[in-house]
Amino acid sequence: MAKSKSPTPAKLPRKTVTDATDKSTLKCLETEARAVYEDSIKDGKPELSAPVRSLGNVKYDSKVGYLEIGRQKKVRTLTVNTVKSFAQTLRVMSLSKEMIEGDTFATKREAYYVSKNWGEAKFNEQPESDAVMDDIEAMFAVQGVSREQLRFYPEEHGGAVAGHLIVIDRDPATGNRLRIDCTKFGTGAYTIPHSVEHLEFETKARFVLAIETGGMFQRLQAHGFWDTADCILVSMSGVPTRATRRFVRRLAEDKQIPVYAFVDCDPYGISNIYRTLKVGSGNTAHLNRFFCVPHATYLGVTPQDILDYELPTHPLLEVDVKRAKDALKNDPFFQHYKPWQKAMEMLISMGVRAEQQALAKWGLNYVIDEYLPDKLKATKSFLP
Amino acid sequence: MAKSKSPTPAKLPRKTVTDATDKSTLKCLETEARAVYEDSIKDGKPELSAPVRSLGNVKYDSKVGYLEIGRQKKVRTLTVNTVKSFAQTLRVMSLSKEMIEGDTFATKREAYYVSKNWGEAKFNEQPESDAVMDDIEAMFAVQGVSREQLRFYPEEHGGAVAGHLIVIDRDPATGNRLRIDCTKFGTGAYTIPHSVEHLEFETKARFVLAIETGGMFQRLQAHGFWDTADCILVSMSGVPTRATRRFVRRLAEDKQIPVYAFVDCDPYGISNIYRTLKVGSGNTAHLNRFFCVPHATYLGVTPQDILDYELPTHPLLEVDVKRAKDALKNDPFFQHYKPWQKAMEMLISMGVRAEQQALAKWGLNYVIDEYLPDKLKATKSFLP
Repeated sequence: MAKSKSPTPAKLPRKTVTDATDKSTLKCLETEARAVYEDSIKDGKPELSAPVRSLGNVKYDSKVGYLEIGRQKKVRTLTVNTVKSFAQTLRVMSLSKEMIEGDTFATKREAYYVSKNWGEAKFNEQPESDAVMDDIEAMFAVQGVSREQLRFYPEEHGGAVAGHLIVIDRDPATGNRLRIDCTKFGTGAYTIPHSVEHLEFETKARFVLAIETGGMFQRLQAHGFWDTADCILVSMSGVPTRATRRFVRRLAEDKQIPVYAFVDCDPYGISNIYRTLKVGSGNTAHLNRFFCVPHATYLGVTPQDILDYELPTHPLLEVDVKRAKDALKNDPFFQHYKPWQKAMEMLISMGVRAEQQALAKWGLNYVIDEYLPDKLKATKSFLP
Repeated sequence: MAKSKSPTPAKLPRKTVTDATDKSTLKCLETEARAVYEDSIKDGKPELSAPVRSLGNVKYDSKVGYLEIGRQKKVRTLTVNTVKSFAQTLRVMSLSKEMIEGDTFATKREAYYVSKNWGEAKFNEQPESDAVMDDIEAMFAVQGVSREQLRFYPEEHGGAVAGHLIVIDRDPATGNRLRIDCTKFGTGAYTIPHSVEHLEFETKARFVLAIETGGMFQRLQAHGFWDTADCILVSMSGVPTRATRRFVRRLAEDKQIPVYAFVDCDPYGISNIYRTLKVGSGNTAHLNRFFCVPHATYLGVTPQDILDYELPTHPLLEVDVKRAKDALKNDPFFQHYKPWQKAMEMLISMGVRAEQQALAKWGLNYVIDEYLPDKLKATKSFLP
């Protein structure tokens, strides 16, 4: 079954770009490329600059609502030493333009393989192409253009969704509008796509409940909690993916509805899952403007809940204590909020953690019949 | 905000059981429990027996189509030493009965927490309750009753689905039938629920394509490959979850349609992902009757494809070579199929592996325009 012919690289067919976001993304790409071209002609020293991505170049202002990138920039000038990565950066930008014009996209891995036909500009290992893409992402993020708009999509899709929400998408083949009713999935659910920029929403739900574990999501969904509480359930399955965070952010912003996080009471649930959802993270500060959900507050499980609901616990591990102390000492988010400092200190002094499913001690549906209704009576007192 | 009252454990409200599968599951539980009760009265020495779960108690017959559990049994008699785990086993069986009657379910973790109110029969650590549940699962599997029927659901849901398929589910609250049309998800997808026993299917699709990576699923879905090829796309995201395997199995069996696997060409993709999908695995042989998909064949990426399509490769790591040699030496599945032995030996001698996304070397949509149509012309020559 050996093929006789050798495959040849195919160009993407070019379509007419009609989408407004796509048009403005193309404009940004062209402006950047034109500047490089003109600098080259003028003095042969074109530059590309991107913000420095490190915790030292990050600030938090609760009015802005997320960890922001600072003003430090890394400038790369074309020299003998940088010529290869300079050329690769321009090739990746060019691939982005081709993908918008061809109405397709690439994962980071695919982009790496595409480069195998770029002659000397090809990437030898994926970490090289990932680094270039991270630079491009940061470069365009400061102009308000996300990696997804540049058509580099994440490998992972978003979490599951159920409840009082209609998602408006389009059929990728025909372009026709599609209304997806998230109350009509039975025991299944809607999967958030890899890129959510083009979605629109219709909802009158009172709030979004962002849930840490698939098991808890399933319980609330199977017992129609979204209907009795008039809400939208989103499963995060641990630290939420880019797509999940962007989906919740766009939904909350467009529809002005609050987001309540329901996660395990441990330093990981609080400082990794919840904090990442709400304000983003330090080493990806250039992305937080797209991905954080400043509308989020913390429903539970709180350290106080462990006492009030007499929950079964596990001892905090050394790594948990370290994580909690780090958060108190170095994290601008925790430094900003007194109530979080108190809660974290309480957790450290109690020396234990509790999972959201620990509520099952009082009966499998105690969480639905008692805990959540109890908590939802006092949303104003949720941790910030 | 401290609560004054202490929560009290709640019993599940009992509903009328009408579902035929639920009724037969209850019957199995009652028969087993009755035997224990009668033995206790007769001679005070009740027994519970479960099949031995080890590679030594496994066989493969291609007519059966999956790795089967053998006849060796482990019998546990009630003695002073076994009294606690004996009691716990009965309590977990009783919880299963309650859940069927209350129309709910528990994850393994929830079941562990429920036990916290069982006095001396409570589990101290989750591995204890997991072990008891595994025994119960094996005990009932030989009678054709799955863990999901016993209402112990996995934490993980299934993969994403798109294409020419209508899934018939019921609204968990009202019991009304729901028709879920998997062509109507736009850029999103349908998420397979945690338990799929109650689902029905309508489809005239030619085949199911089970895809290893989320990135490839997304490409095929976004470009409407399910429509042009008249198929159903299922994303496995690595080794498929129980729910994904059971969903594909039930769909393939009910509708008698072939399943083609499209995974990376490496020992992990072949012997872990594909082999697990098709025939199950050795240490969970008691489950394979529910979860394997004997209808599956292997579309690619094959070692021959690496040559034919001049794919970019990575060197095989030591762990890859070990995995491949182990499969050839110890795995009844590979021992049964000559073509697989040749393919594995070829891969070892080439010393490289290739990812499915490596096809992007020839253009992002080469996989859609050339590779898959090429392969689908000769489905009979797929590896078994």
